[in-house]
Amino acid sequence: MPTVYDVTTWSVPGNPGATPASDIGLVINSIIADIKSQQTNQASKPGAVIYIPPGDYSLKTRVNVDVSYLTIRGSGHGFTSSSIRYNAGNTSSWFEINPGGSRIRVENTDGRSEAFRVFRGGDPRLSSIVFENFCLDGVGFTGNQNSYRNGKTGILVDSANDAFRVQGMGMVYLERGLVVRDADALSVSGNFLAECGSCVELIGSGQATKVTDNLLGAGYVGFSIYAENHWGLLVAGNNIFPRGKSMVHFKATSRSSITANRFHAFYPGMIVCEGTCNENLITGNHFLRQVEPFIPLKPYNNGLDDLFGLVHVRGNGNSVMSNHFSYDVPSSAVSPAGRAPTIVLVASGQDNFIATNNTIASIPVKAVVLDASTIRTKVLDSATASQFEPLTTNHTFRPTP
Amino acid sequence: MPTVYDVTTWSVPGNPGATPASDIGLVINSIIADIKSQQTNQASKPGAVIYIPPGDYSLKTRVNVDVSYLTIRGSGHGFTSSSIRYNAGNTSSWFEINPGGSRIRVENTDGRSEAFRVFRGGDPRLSSIVFENFCLDGVGFTGNQNSYRNGKTGILVDSANDAFRVQGMGMVYLERGLVVRDADALSVSGNFLAECGSCVELIGSGQATKVTDNLLGAGYVGFSIYAENHWGLLVAGNNIFPRGKSMVHFKATSRSSITANRFHAFYPGMIVCEGTCNENLITGNHFLRQVEPFIPLKPYNNGLDDLFGLVHVRGNGNSVMSNHFSYDVPSSAVSPAGRAPTIVLVASGQDNFIATNNTIASIPVKAVVLDASTIRTKVLDSATASQFEPLTTNHTFRPTP
Amino acid sequence: MPTVYDVTTWSVPGNPGATPASDIGLVINSIIADIKSQQTNQASKPGAVIYIPPGDYSLKTRVNVDVSYLTIRGSGHGFTSSSIRYNAGNTSSWFEINPGGSRIRVENTDGRSEAFRVFRGGDPRLSSIVFENFCLDGVGFTGNQNSYRNGKTGILVDSANDAFRVQGMGMVYLERGLVVRDADALSVSGNFLAECGSCVELIGSGQATKVTDNLLGAGYVGFSIYAENHWGLLVAGNNIFPRGKSMVHFKATSRSSITANRFHAFYPGMIVCEGTCNENLITGNHFLRQVEPFIPLKPYNNGLDDLFGLVHVRGNGNSVMSNHFSYDVPSSAVSPAGRAPTIVLVASGQDNFIATNNTIASIPVKAVVLDASTIRTKVLDSATASQFEPLTTNHTFRPTP
Repeated sequence: MPTVYDVTTWSVPGNPGATPASDIGLVINSIIADIKSQQTNQASKPGAVIYIPPGDYSLKTRVNVDVSYLTIRGSGHGFTSSSIRYNAGNTSSWFEINPGGSRIRVENTDGRSEAFRVFRGGDPRLSSIVFENFCLDGVGFTGNQNSYRNGKTGILVDSANDAFRVQGMGMVYLERGLVVRDADALSVSGNFLAECGSCVELIGSGQATKVTDNLLGAGYVGFSIYAENHWGLLVAGNNIFPRGKSMVHFKATSRSSITANRFHAFYPGMIVCEGTCNENLITGNHFLRQVEPFIPLKPYNNGLDDLFGLVHVRGNGNSVMSNHFSYDVPSSAVSPAGRAPTIVLVASGQDNFIATNNTIASIPVKAVVLDASTIRTKVLDSATASQFEPLTTNHTFRPTP
Repeated sequence: MPTVYDVTTWSVPGNPGATPASDIGLVINSIIADIKSQQTNQASKPGAVIYIPPGDYSLKTRVNVDVSYLTIRGSGHGFTSSSIRYNAGNTSSWFEINPGGSRIRVENTDGRSEAFRVFRGGDPRLSSIVFENFCLDGVGFTGNQNSYRNGKTGILVDSANDAFRVQGMGMVYLERGLVVRDADALSVSGNFLAECGSCVELIGSGQATKVTDNLLGAGYVGFSIYAENHWGLLVAGNNIFPRGKSMVHFKATSRSSITANRFHAFYPGMIVCEGTCNENLITGNHFLRQVEPFIPLKPYNNGLDDLFGLVHVRGNGNSVMSNHFSYDVPSSAVSPAGRAPTIVLVASGQDNFIATNNTIASIPVKAVVLDASTIRTKVLDSATASQFEPLTTNHTFRPTP
Repeated sequence: MPTVYDVTTWSVPGNPGATPASDIGLVINSIIADIKSQQTNQASKPGAVIYIPPGDYSLKTRVNVDVSYLTIRGSGHGFTSSSIRYNAGNTSSWFEINPGGSRIRVENTDGRSEAFRVFRGGDPRLSSIVFENFCLDGVGFTGNQNSYRNGKTGILVDSANDAFRVQGMGMVYLERGLVVRDADALSVSGNFLAECGSCVELIGSGQATKVTDNLLGAGYVGFSIYAENHWGLLVAGNNIFPRGKSMVHFKATSRSSITANRFHAFYPGMIVCEGTCNENLITGNHFLRQVEPFIPLKPYNNGLDDLFGLVHVRGNGNSVMSNHFSYDVPSSAVSPAGRAPTIVLVASGQDNFIATNNTIASIPVKAVVLDASTIRTKVLDSATASQFEPLTTNHTFRPTP
């Protein structure tokens, strides 16, 4: 029973003309059908590897993955900046103009928006599916090449799952890169997901997941990392560059960690808590906020003003400790004009703890602002007296001396 | 001289009926013998790759590894929860019931307890052996399926070693997963080791090792990470879930780091120092302590009471800084009844430094407790006055305001 | 169009006698020429994989890489300590004496000093080239085997580049290991680079790069990690052992992070800022300083005295927070004799922030020293009153109580 498949050597039964160059989705679906026909013993379904050698493939038919232990693996995430290319003018003299590696152009003609959808009902949850080291390229955006919109999704995991891995992948010019519903112990590591509307979205709910050691940069329409109803999520060791509405957006996500990351943004709202987010740890991160330097993208932003905070905390019992903030924005670019920008805003909740954070700013800022609704926030060594703006007296403050 | 072997195509000399399905141990030992017979020049022994395609293999004979530069590699760690399955009742309608990927069932009939033993006497130490991306499955526990006992070990490295890598592996339902004696510059990264009695045990002694970016969860009988007589160990970026007697247990281990991890436990003793552990750094970690929610495992715990501390420090000059603790246990579940649980216990030693830690608790706790024997501990911004319990006056305390 | 090449099966056109054993550089250059001849469509140049099976290869001709999306991949970084072997005396009874895995001996006879040079002029920058999991062995140093000098470089990336990966590589006994000019979003992860004069040098300029999860140890003549004119660099989760003039040397590098690493050194100057380095974050690291214990290397050091600082800060607005320092040097080994060694020296600049660091030392030390030229440094909970030496009054100090 062979368990290692190569998309370039597989013959689709009944369709000998099918090729991965013309529709790799059709080919992979055929391979998955073969795996299922070969592995029918409930006690022994080890799965398989589907290998995608370096090459240029079109995907016109969505791949539907419904077997555990499947590895879909290429040799090269093949990222190159399509944003630079599309904004470069005449590129006729360029050596190459497109991403490469094991590159799949997402060009569905089946009415679907995803290149890959992983879904299975019934028991047990799908386990240990791996996406590794290939490129999902949305090819172009619609309207204009800076819209981050084309309705295309790279990978949608749409049912509960356990122990999945997404590693070494490249994604570019997709409206949504990786979307995972109801993750348990997911690993998203070593990827290069950039110039996508959003990069990583953890939707539904989830626990015990890690997003580590990635290079990420979303568009102004979405998030570099989004997580809703998650807990026990570890976001660590990532280098996240612009743009992204947020670098990390938590919605009703609690008891999670954002640590040892490097963040760079052109807008406020670098880390955003939406709804009630409790007992999260934000520590050891470097934040840099500048203004958009790239002329084609200067018209765009995330709509937030400078009072929103680089870190926007909503919820209870969160810890923000030992972070460095560099705020490098000319006063002329601040909105609302004339106001001191906010670094950390505690927008709601009680018992939040802000300690030993350092802010270096090009203009006077409010390093910590407490909303009038907040209760018992403690702010220690994170703002000088003049950098602290409590809109409530219900707090404890030890100014940075 | 071929250096890439595939267990499914290798013919065991003199034993043509041997197959990896019936005994992959016998096959791999035969391949190793071939490598040794081919590589006899002291100046040129590059080693080899032994590839294990996805499939279901039984191991009845222990593999004995005694050549440097050997990579044993599969395509899929194949983890699925055997604990959920064994406790699920009727699983006849399930799609699959077992782990998968490149799955080796550890079913020794040779009187050995290990699937793999790495050992060589003489000089030099074995170097740069790699275990990568396959599954070691203990299949079942003895007594009952929640005992975490079956006498089975996945990998035992039993002599001094340098620059080994264990990466992308899956282990499940082994009493002991990975055990490494006398490690130098070992890398344990990107693994999924869970539902094992213990996951990673670094025994004997060791230095300059890293355990990073793993998903780990041991049983109540063992440790997620154990290290004895180590120094310069870096435990970083791991997501460690229950259960585990401890998430990290150090015995006489010093000058090591536990940083940027996420820890979740159902018992006290999440990080334990045994014997004298000096000058370790525990920083940037998120700790969550809850009570066991899974009915089949409610009868079990690690035997420690709530005065033991989530972090139990023994030794001198350790630093515990910038950690977040969430303690979410109903008062009815606290032991001894009526006592305030301990978050950080300095159980012995001098010159320990506890600074800028935040505790959020469902009931009143003692955030820092100092044993009567302790000397010159400094506790800064880690406990309010009422959360601090010094059983000695030989300390410095600055309460969290 | 095949895109997966194996150096052991490739026939060099017009040179049928060429083998990778005798000159792998010639073979790889021939493969690259083939890729270029096959991939001539500007819109579709996916690149290729060049596979190097485990084996012993000599490189006599420099490889010139000038195509994007090329992966050069082996099966085994093959590190072993050549330093131990060369200093061991009679090794005739040893099992093996050389590194292994996919091992390339760097033995240029072409007048070049690099094994691999990556360079392309014109547009766009080279993208997504990968070096993975093979060994570059300099074989021996010149003069004596402890000189760290032989003029050999492993990989030189010599033109601007984007999204490169260097992962799982081993390098040993090269004067310079990995040298990358003008990096954008480079990933250097999971490597074992040791016993090289310098390990990782990021030259020219660069941004948004990560050096994570590596085991590194340079010689006394060079740096484990060097970066000049970089910003947004993330150095995280590395275990860096001796020797290295510095573990991390920043020259005019700003807004970067050094976090969650473990550092071990035999000299002062573990982290050095040269020129003006601004707004960097150094947090969550463990530093251990001891004296050279290895007799053959006792004659050597980096020429710095103990007043230089384990961390030497030059520039403005840097944050040094939540680090642990272990200083274990006998007073007899301190230079200048009789002086108290410096842990953190702020050598120049303004608005540096040193907070919540802990030092454990075998002798009295100055935990923080401020140069007379420094302005507005804040030092909080990082030194007792007697451990603080401000050579200026222009500072804020809150002593560790």
